[in-house]
Amino acid sequence: MMKNVIVGQSGGPTAVINGSLYGVVSEALKKSDCFEYVYGMVNGIEGFLHDQIMDMSTLVPTGELELLKTTPGAYLGSCRYKLPEDLNDPVYPTLFEKFTAKNIGYFFYIGGNDSMDTVSKLSRYAASINSDIRVIGIPKTIDNDLVETDHTPGFGSAAKYVATTVREISIDASVYDNKKSVTIVEIMGRHAGWLTAASVLARKFEGDNPILIYLPEVAFNQEEFLAKVEESLKTTPNLVVCISEGINDGNGTFICEFASDVGVDNFGHKMLTGSGKYLENLVKEKLGVKVRSVELNVSQRCSSACLSKTDLEESISGGAFGVNAALNGETGKMIAFSRTASAPYNMECTTADVNIICNMEKGVPLEWITKDGSDVSDEFVNYAAPLIQGSIEVPMKNGLPNFAYRK
Amino acid sequence: MMKNVIVGQSGGPTAVINGSLYGVVSEALKKSDCFEYVYGMVNGIEGFLHDQIMDMSTLVPTGELELLKTTPGAYLGSCRYKLPEDLNDPVYPTLFEKFTAKNIGYFFYIGGNDSMDTVSKLSRYAASINSDIRVIGIPKTIDNDLVETDHTPGFGSAAKYVATTVREISIDASVYDNKKSVTIVEIMGRHAGWLTAASVLARKFEGDNPILIYLPEVAFNQEEFLAKVEESLKTTPNLVVCISEGINDGNGTFICEFASDVGVDNFGHKMLTGSGKYLENLVKEKLGVKVRSVELNVSQRCSSACLSKTDLEESISGGAFGVNAALNGETGKMIAFSRTASAPYNMECTTADVNIICNMEKGVPLEWITKDGSDVSDEFVNYAAPLIQGSIEVPMKNGLPNFAYRK
Repeated sequence: MMKNVIVGQSGGPTAVINGSLYGVVSEALKKSDCFEYVYGMVNGIEGFLHDQIMDMSTLVPTGELELLKTTPGAYLGSCRYKLPEDLNDPVYPTLFEKFTAKNIGYFFYIGGNDSMDTVSKLSRYAASINSDIRVIGIPKTIDNDLVETDHTPGFGSAAKYVATTVREISIDASVYDNKKSVTIVEIMGRHAGWLTAASVLARKFEGDNPILIYLPEVAFNQEEFLAKVEESLKTTPNLVVCISEGINDGNGTFICEFASDVGVDNFGHKMLTGSGKYLENLVKEKLGVKVRSVELNVSQRCSSACLSKTDLEESISGGAFGVNAALNGETGKMIAFSRTASAPYNMECTTADVNIICNMEKGVPLEWITKDGSDVSDEFVNYAAPLIQGSIEVPMKNGLPNFAYRK
Repeated sequence: MMKNVIVGQSGGPTAVINGSLYGVVSEALKKSDCFEYVYGMVNGIEGFLHDQIMDMSTLVPTGELELLKTTPGAYLGSCRYKLPEDLNDPVYPTLFEKFTAKNIGYFFYIGGNDSMDTVSKLSRYAASINSDIRVIGIPKTIDNDLVETDHTPGFGSAAKYVATTVREISIDASVYDNKKSVTIVEIMGRHAGWLTAASVLARKFEGDNPILIYLPEVAFNQEEFLAKVEESLKTTPNLVVCISEGINDGNGTFICEFASDVGVDNFGHKMLTGSGKYLENLVKEKLGVKVRSVELNVSQRCSSACLSKTDLEESISGGAFGVNAALNGETGKMIAFSRTASAPYNMECTTADVNIICNMEKGVPLEWITKDGSDVSDEFVNYAAPLIQGSIEVPMKNGLPNFAYRK
């Protein structure tokens, strides 16, 4: 009797996490001689525990499956559910009884390092009970912080969004070029600066904005920052500075936390201020120059307008590769990307041991950050540029993108 | 001897203000039997006073003129320079001497109501000295708040950006649909709610997010707002609320000002909080539900990724129409849009007396806002939907939009 496939999504969404889902589902449906049903878990492993599953083949006749490719967010819904460390916890037999009841032979989980932790635990538990269920992780994260892979699906599109938007903000900031101004752009990335570093791609020519780029990998010094801003304003009257939300003093204190004694709101709660807002106030106070801060916010991970063709195609092929890896007997693996050539860029899918990936974080190499910590090097540009290439035409309906959604 | 043309840009930029510039310049260059030179003012009337002008024909061989169409920001640079009310002020003869020195016969100014004030004053001064210079205003503003015109260039693309982004944010917000959450999206518009109202277009089906929409045209009651949020959460667990930055209590106090006694930063300055942030804290405190606020910020006026084809084409044709209106002897006029049919939509350019446009603001009609002030009606949808139709392929280079910029 043929086994069934189940696929779920977990953690924060990206612009292409549904591309990975499309890759898994379309490849599994194609292999109708290998699989009986292709199920989706609604709201990840947490939803599965509540028997929330759906038959993914129902998306084919409605055309929703094709729409998935360009739909941001997690179509199946997500969760942030951490399985217990103790494999003797009763949740494991509960889960595997449900797998058996649904005749699941192949389990795919699309997510970041927390999700890979789920893949690791399920595959280890499966081994411990001699279950032949195959458990495969499909990577996704705009943070690009997974080890054992050249990059992660979701990063390219987020990087393209950041670079495009910073270029546009720089143009917007320069319309009054007879008046000095500072624009501080806060970009996602609590611990890894990949996405902030991608703002370097916005430069149209040497010496163009963003002039200053600060990542969390290097200690942030407020005095040096102010000196840099003052110096840069001499040659760039409308200065754009990109900072990671996670910039910190190198001793474990986020820069935004320096503002935490700032004041309480009218309910007596501490005001939560981002690092961008904090630095906006700092520049205003210390340099007396016109300044504003812009938080790029959730559009970084859910904008469909800046989808990278490279990123989307890779996310789809990563999902499809995962299905074939599982068919070939692999389990406890994450699909990884290996860059086989740089010019021209070429990527091949491979597999990596999920146990050495989960719960690890990969930062930007320090040698790709300039010595004074205020810029990134050409090595980073060469690394990131191929990942944002190519555009995607998103299907439109009545003037707006036509997204898939669960009814 | 043929006269020369000069064109400038003023006020805040939009995604299509350069489309209007393209319209004026390309039409004027085409009419080489009517005009000698086509000049651009750099940084508006303020830059012109400092003799900052450029020959726009130099953009043709480089291809920059074509790129203008899809370049956000103000290519020529902008200014916020208000001409004196007193037409006896010496700045007027100074300006007109410069016009004479440059043999200017046609003056085009692209901007919002402040810029129309400049057009009004220059045309009235010209009349007072019997100058035959023709002064024409070309409208632009994402705020859509100019009177005597159906809508303004720039609004359609900004509305498309808002609707697209709110749809994406709604999808992003719904990935954990087993947990209640409120997302408050703050949209530009200090006095007019047109752009915030455009968020209604994001709804994919009846009852879809954004559920609540608040405009500055109607007094905002915090208690009623909280009750609405609580009620809406019962049917929409991941609630999206769109508010205009300018929502106010109806007695002249912006909602964000209720937070102004919130606290001072570490420099002793009052913290500036947006209305979205203020309501985020209010909901957190009073309803105890997970809540975040997102400020859409400057991308509303400078994103090239959501250009409306309708908006761009209209901005170009408005500029070209202005050139022909001036040739036909019109002066002291703004180019206006007249909607001649709704289904299918049809627009014709016309002219309107700039003196009754400048310094006026047009809000969303109260009858297009639902009785409880938390939504907009189908009349608004029918009005706005045609303005966001059609997409534009922005020229790309190395994975990013290729924009024109002054060297």
